[in-house]
Amino acid sequence: MKYGLIGASGRLGSEVVKLFEEKNHKLVFAYDLEGEWKNENPDLLIDCSLPEVFNKSIEYACELNKPFIVATTGLTESNIELMKNYSKQFPIVQSFNFSIGIQVLLKLTEAAKEKLSDWDVEITETHHRFKKDKPSGTAKMIQNVFEGKEINTSSLRLGNVNGDHSVSFGGLGEILTISHRALSRRTFAEGILLSAQFILNKQSGFYYFKDIVLRK
Amino acid sequence: MKYGLIGASGRLGSEVVKLFEEKNHKLVFAYDLEGEWKNENPDLLIDCSLPEVFNKSIEYACELNKPFIVATTGLTESNIELMKNYSKQFPIVQSFNFSIGIQVLLKLTEAAKEKLSDWDVEITETHHRFKKDKPSGTAKMIQNVFEGKEINTSSLRLGNVNGDHSVSFGGLGEILTISHRALSRRTFAEGILLSAQFILNKQSGFYYFKDIVLRK
Amino acid sequence: MKYGLIGASGRLGSEVVKLFEEKNHKLVFAYDLEGEWKNENPDLLIDCSLPEVFNKSIEYACELNKPFIVATTGLTESNIELMKNYSKQFPIVQSFNFSIGIQVLLKLTEAAKEKLSDWDVEITETHHRFKKDKPSGTAKMIQNVFEGKEINTSSLRLGNVNGDHSVSFGGLGEILTISHRALSRRTFAEGILLSAQFILNKQSGFYYFKDIVLRK
Amino acid sequence: MKYGLIGASGRLGSEVVKLFEEKNHKLVFAYDLEGEWKNENPDLLIDCSLPEVFNKSIEYACELNKPFIVATTGLTESNIELMKNYSKQFPIVQSFNFSIGIQVLLKLTEAAKEKLSDWDVEITETHHRFKKDKPSGTAKMIQNVFEGKEINTSSLRLGNVNGDHSVSFGGLGEILTISHRALSRRTFAEGILLSAQFILNKQSGFYYFKDIVLRK
Repeated sequence: MKYGLIGASGRLGSEVVKLFEEKNHKLVFAYDLEGEWKNENPDLLIDCSLPEVFNKSIEYACELNKPFIVATTGLTESNIELMKNYSKQFPIVQSFNFSIGIQVLLKLTEAAKEKLSDWDVEITETHHRFKKDKPSGTAKMIQNVFEGKEINTSSLRLGNVNGDHSVSFGGLGEILTISHRALSRRTFAEGILLSAQFILNKQSGFYYFKDIVLRK
Repeated sequence: MKYGLIGASGRLGSEVVKLFEEKNHKLVFAYDLEGEWKNENPDLLIDCSLPEVFNKSIEYACELNKPFIVATTGLTESNIELMKNYSKQFPIVQSFNFSIGIQVLLKLTEAAKEKLSDWDVEITETHHRFKKDKPSGTAKMIQNVFEGKEINTSSLRLGNVNGDHSVSFGGLGEILTISHRALSRRTFAEGILLSAQFILNKQSGFYYFKDIVLRK
Repeated sequence: MKYGLIGASGRLGSEVVKLFEEKNHKLVFAYDLEGEWKNENPDLLIDCSLPEVFNKSIEYACELNKPFIVATTGLTESNIELMKNYSKQFPIVQSFNFSIGIQVLLKLTEAAKEKLSDWDVEITETHHRFKKDKPSGTAKMIQNVFEGKEINTSSLRLGNVNGDHSVSFGGLGEILTISHRALSRRTFAEGILLSAQFILNKQSGFYYFKDIVLRK
Repeated sequence: MKYGLIGASGRLGSEVVKLFEEKNHKLVFAYDLEGEWKNENPDLLIDCSLPEVFNKSIEYACELNKPFIVATTGLTESNIELMKNYSKQFPIVQSFNFSIGIQVLLKLTEAAKEKLSDWDVEITETHHRFKKDKPSGTAKMIQNVFEGKEINTSSLRLGNVNGDHSVSFGGLGEILTISHRALSRRTFAEGILLSAQFILNKQSGFYYFKDIVLRK
């Protein structure tokens, strides 16, 4: 496919470029801090940039009127609402975490919670020492599975860990743990590729990444 | 409830006695190497004995005509067939592993396998140094989830570990692991208690422990 | 050997009785809530009781004038001072944790700390849901290895876990972890047996359990 | 410092370039598949190339007569002998694994082995699916600590794991585990930088990387 990328030179953007190149997809439209440095017409548009660029991104998306994948974090509820409106014109996929494994972990956590409703629960997350927020956004997503029940969550900051998450269920005779380890940012690029393949021939509609992974 | 127990003085049997006593259930019928040392009429019968005693066990079950729970390991297909026939007269629960967590692990493994069908899979099990068979029966149950696909399985023999099992899925950017640790044999007694509560008011029917955990 | 035991019917005391019996050591003196129910002359005396019984215990020890092993937790500095005085008359071994593995973990942590002095450190401990103090006494022993440097310590309360401890060192490219899992209270009985064998032929002297494990 | 690098464009070589640049060390001599593309006189020379280039590397080292660090894997005993001879003229550091954490793991394993000589031992290593040799070279280094005693070693091949190694000791009541995870190849570049700082002012002598880490 021919794709466009906003935030092409960022940390996630450059992972996308690398993976898509490996798979023989061609970058034909690119916009980042350097401005617009490729400007052919793409089959779809991907946004890996920052919330402050979101207005510009949505403008490009409307102009192109092509499938749109949004991986920018920190967007507001009203940004999401706006996308839901535009998704009547062109299809949109959105997520704050494009890791397939995390979506599966959330799904498994939900299934385990139902079966083990009276067991203790503990969440643990480990990230690099530079991460300042505790707990991680993904840990909060795991907490949300328990719908308001307060779950003890331990945050470890250690070296340069990309992101480990685990949720443990403990009964009096046994422990069940579901855990996830991100090996690199490549994992997020893979989730974006999966979304691209899913959305390419859709006419319209708003999708969460979760819907794509779990319907797969 | 008033319960009967075959194999009352065995390793698993004595865990059952301990747990049921805690929960105020009364042992009124007991048979083991010492013979029949309690013989009132129970509400249900539990078998935690050995395959060589199975004929005697089934004889007791028919005579009592009450709900029957079978936790004996090493039974044959024809033993199971026989029970299926008798289950038209009185309800029967059977399993080779009465751990709730292992049943949930098997269920989660199935769900993960569907979503992550092209990821690598590795199974690991650790048991006490006295265990001679490799891999463990439970590891084989995990392998069976993958329906004939060959899964590399590592067996560790270490100290006095009750039983750890894990199954890991690996993609190029991330790892997802589901793991289980048995803390004590008490966990199996808990599964038997759950089965007892389920079967007590049934009239007939054959159930695997899995059906009970997963319908819960 | 012929041994005496104070607190013979307690949780730790009964593990000691079981292990020593397996190894053909004979319980000839016993004191607990039931009073003195064996009273022959032992080769050594073990105390697995409570701080409130300590005066009685030390009285017995002086009277017998034999090697004395103290596994009671919650003793004060002045209790320890008193023992140090008496250890001129008869040999004494004392510890708040008779697990061999924990002593080795402490030793390894010290060695790792020296080599990896500029790496991040994280301590984690997991115990059964009934444990109320956080962090565990053993976690504090690990913290002490870092001599006043504040170490982030995560406490998990999960099911019926006997006690897991781990200390992780993280550099920008790698993680090193030392971890310990207690499988049962038997481990503490084993440490007491090791101490008994060590102290049996000593004339006098005060020893920490650590000294015995590490000189081994 | 001003450094020279053989194999500058390889996988490890490019990590070295990145790290040394961050630390303001200057690449002034470079040789790789493209030939000699920088050729000022360096303060020391690093070899991250392949065994087939070793003759060329040693030629450069002799010519420059400066400290020499050798990170090439697959060298033979006679290659090492040759280096030991040359180390009378200029100092040399050699290792097949420049990870600091792995050297510490080996040291801790040795210490644990002495204290826990009658416990069971299990080694586990996990690497990316592309690694063909089993067990890994590092797992063999761990095995060697046990001097000929056969140690069960499990090899897992999973996704894109950089390299996990663990060694577990199991007694009847407890488990002690030492484990290591490589987060990226950067860790090896860091070991090379540490070696460079160590060797820069030496006149001569042959050093293993282990000697540098453990004397630190």
